[in-house]
Amino acid sequence: MEVCQTNMKNDDSEPQRPAHPGVFPTCKAGKSDHHPVLHTVDFPVSVVLPAGGTGERTGLQTPKQFCSFLGRPLISYTIQAFERVPWIQIIVVVIAKENMDLMMDIIQRFQHIKVRVVLGGSTRHRSICNGVLALGEEETPAADRPKVLIIHDAVRPFVDEDFLYQIAMAAKEQGAAGAIRPLVSTVIATTSEGFLDHSLERAKYRASEMPQGFTYDVIYQAYQRCTESDFDFGTECLHLALQYCGTNAKLIEGPPTLWKVTYKRDLAAAESIIKETLSQSACFITGGLTPAVRLADALQKAVGALNMELDVIPDLTGDNARYLFKEWNFIQVSINQFCPSEVEAVLGALQATNRGLLHPLVVIWVLLRNGDELSISSSAAEPPAIMDLASTVKLQNVLLYGIQLHQSKDSEGWERSVSRVAEIASALIRERSPALVGQLLQA
Amino acid sequence: MEVCQTNMKNDDSEPQRPAHPGVFPTCKAGKSDHHPVLHTVDFPVSVVLPAGGTGERTGLQTPKQFCSFLGRPLISYTIQAFERVPWIQIIVVVIAKENMDLMMDIIQRFQHIKVRVVLGGSTRHRSICNGVLALGEEETPAADRPKVLIIHDAVRPFVDEDFLYQIAMAAKEQGAAGAIRPLVSTVIATTSEGFLDHSLERAKYRASEMPQGFTYDVIYQAYQRCTESDFDFGTECLHLALQYCGTNAKLIEGPPTLWKVTYKRDLAAAESIIKETLSQSACFITGGLTPAVRLADALQKAVGALNMELDVIPDLTGDNARYLFKEWNFIQVSINQFCPSEVEAVLGALQATNRGLLHPLVVIWVLLRNGDELSISSSAAEPPAIMDLASTVKLQNVLLYGIQLHQSKDSEGWERSVSRVAEIASALIRERSPALVGQLLQA
Repeated sequence: MEVCQTNMKNDDSEPQRPAHPGVFPTCKAGKSDHHPVLHTVDFPVSVVLPAGGTGERTGLQTPKQFCSFLGRPLISYTIQAFERVPWIQIIVVVIAKENMDLMMDIIQRFQHIKVRVVLGGSTRHRSICNGVLALGEEETPAADRPKVLIIHDAVRPFVDEDFLYQIAMAAKEQGAAGAIRPLVSTVIATTSEGFLDHSLERAKYRASEMPQGFTYDVIYQAYQRCTESDFDFGTECLHLALQYCGTNAKLIEGPPTLWKVTYKRDLAAAESIIKETLSQSACFITGGLTPAVRLADALQKAVGALNMELDVIPDLTGDNARYLFKEWNFIQVSINQFCPSEVEAVLGALQATNRGLLHPLVVIWVLLRNGDELSISSSAAEPPAIMDLASTVKLQNVLLYGIQLHQSKDSEGWERSVSRVAEIASALIRERSPALVGQLLQA
Repeated sequence: MEVCQTNMKNDDSEPQRPAHPGVFPTCKAGKSDHHPVLHTVDFPVSVVLPAGGTGERTGLQTPKQFCSFLGRPLISYTIQAFERVPWIQIIVVVIAKENMDLMMDIIQRFQHIKVRVVLGGSTRHRSICNGVLALGEEETPAADRPKVLIIHDAVRPFVDEDFLYQIAMAAKEQGAAGAIRPLVSTVIATTSEGFLDHSLERAKYRASEMPQGFTYDVIYQAYQRCTESDFDFGTECLHLALQYCGTNAKLIEGPPTLWKVTYKRDLAAAESIIKETLSQSACFITGGLTPAVRLADALQKAVGALNMELDVIPDLTGDNARYLFKEWNFIQVSINQFCPSEVEAVLGALQATNRGLLHPLVVIWVLLRNGDELSISSSAAEPPAIMDLASTVKLQNVLLYGIQLHQSKDSEGWERSVSRVAEIASALIRERSPALVGQLLQA
């Protein structure tokens, strides 16, 4: 996609670390503004995530919600998208019996804290119904019983807080609300012999997507009143709300990132979105040394052209410790020889934050040499040292790579080297390849 | 996607080199069998590819048919998919005036030979109509006038010959035929106020996709008879054939790979399919030397576990020259020291085939050292030599990487090294990163 890279709008939400346990906020909702960070909701909202699908359409044996992206199953990304929304209380994940152990392991490994697991039924509607009932059970404390319930798919990981807010508010007001998208293809009716009967006028129809929201009463009553045939063959919760509660759902056009991971190609698309989200920024640690600061300045321009933000700091102490808690990648410079204590400080700080829990972190160790013969000949001992360190930190999901460059005296050579460092660093950060950790690359 | 990799069905067609100029085959179509390679068609078939879209939905400034994947625009992949089908004669690409120069450049650069370019109209139907008329013009030799015309989208690059055959045969028999896919989402009708009106029963409807086929007479008459309003607001050619010629199109379910590159995420999905197709096999050239053969044997098992096929040959002479003409990647071994003439032979042979024209080729130069001190200390001179060679061949779209390993005496160490070579080679071949060419990696 190299031609388009610089022109792309980022239409994808940015997964972040899960929020801390959701203390239910009591402040009023900011009704008049549209900034997601300021939204809150003054009524209890919980979520049902049906996750009993078999992944037939991807052509995989593993159900698609359990396929891993950078070492973490898709469903964990979806759960995280809800966990980081402070006004969401409980996420009921509905799971087939055979995947129960796997799901419990995922919850434990990725430290999900708002999840309650419920056994699925034989169809999608039976599974969702089990989730709805679980939130109304008598042992649920009254404060936990949701006013609004959001239903979502486990295989739509990129839902964002702003859109959830819109759905929750519309559901509270109208009784039901659902995401829609324009149709990509014309929809046609077929005859029983496989011929065209008629085509629908595209402008009058929409694709019904997820999330959908309901007041708890509406979705509960809809499932109480619907027939066995609805349970067995129905697909559309909004239809049940209309048919059995007389509730016409409010339809809200959602962003393209709401799409459902359905086919094998969608797995590649999801992985690419996740990687892109993790590759937008790097933090360059100079140690306060002049040649390193000079390199950082030159590099800042070069990576900007590659669509990456680069912040330059002397070290990670004090206020700069904030870089450890967001989606930053790290570049540590050493001058003339690798000084393990410098990079070990960064690695240790990252390990202390447990950031490798959710996705692999990239640390690039840059060795800036002044170019005399002595330092070149000493280089043979360093590759094994980086390799050993990289093998160790890989266990904590930190990917360590090395880049070496020589400080050339002519400015043209220097610019060429800097631009190669930028290209190599950018490729390492974007591709996040475990096979290349510990390599010392030449710029 | 690491968890799923081994379980994936390959549901994607494999782009290959363009076929030689399509001499129209005169033999009879093999009607009773379903093997794509044996199909041929005993009537003239041509193609109209409307390519005037603006790419609005991807969020890109570049229209999506011109976005590059591994250095080649999407539309060139789609054209190639038709050019390699021997029974397809002419591919009429319909282009907006502002992209005409770009299109001519693409045809010339990627040596497309069956393409005729036609100026687009103000809407999709006007553009397709221009394409249809261009094939019926008086100056078109009678033998070139198609019996069946296939209409396809420039942004559906993975259409395969077998499916084109099905569409062409059904179109000849029924007058019209079109690809369909099951609906992924429920389709709903909305009220003018944005509320749910009703939902359609998903089983009765299908998404209408491309390709579609028509006898030339049917599509020509349909465009002769349709209204200005059809030209301005219509989207569905099958509908025009039904309304104006009374032809009920035969609907044929196509593979998921027919999907239309519509959103930004689809660009990533398309790139991933292209990369995967190019990464399925590597050819290991031993030079006939015993240590290299030993490495090849060990590597064959290791890359098998990584889903890559590895063929082992002594050199590229004689019958082995066939490896140069398909989607193979190459691994050349040198023992104890890099011998440029060995890898230069491979690079020269590849350049002679002009295979870098359509996509970047990967050549990995493996240096197998016997592990004594002398050879380690001699290594400092080699990185610059590989880098220089890599820079030169990159201009011909050949990506050259180096991997060094030491022949360990203990078998455990040896197995570890071999498995690292396999992982590194597999990552280099799959990721095809231009930023890492010329690097000497340590296994």
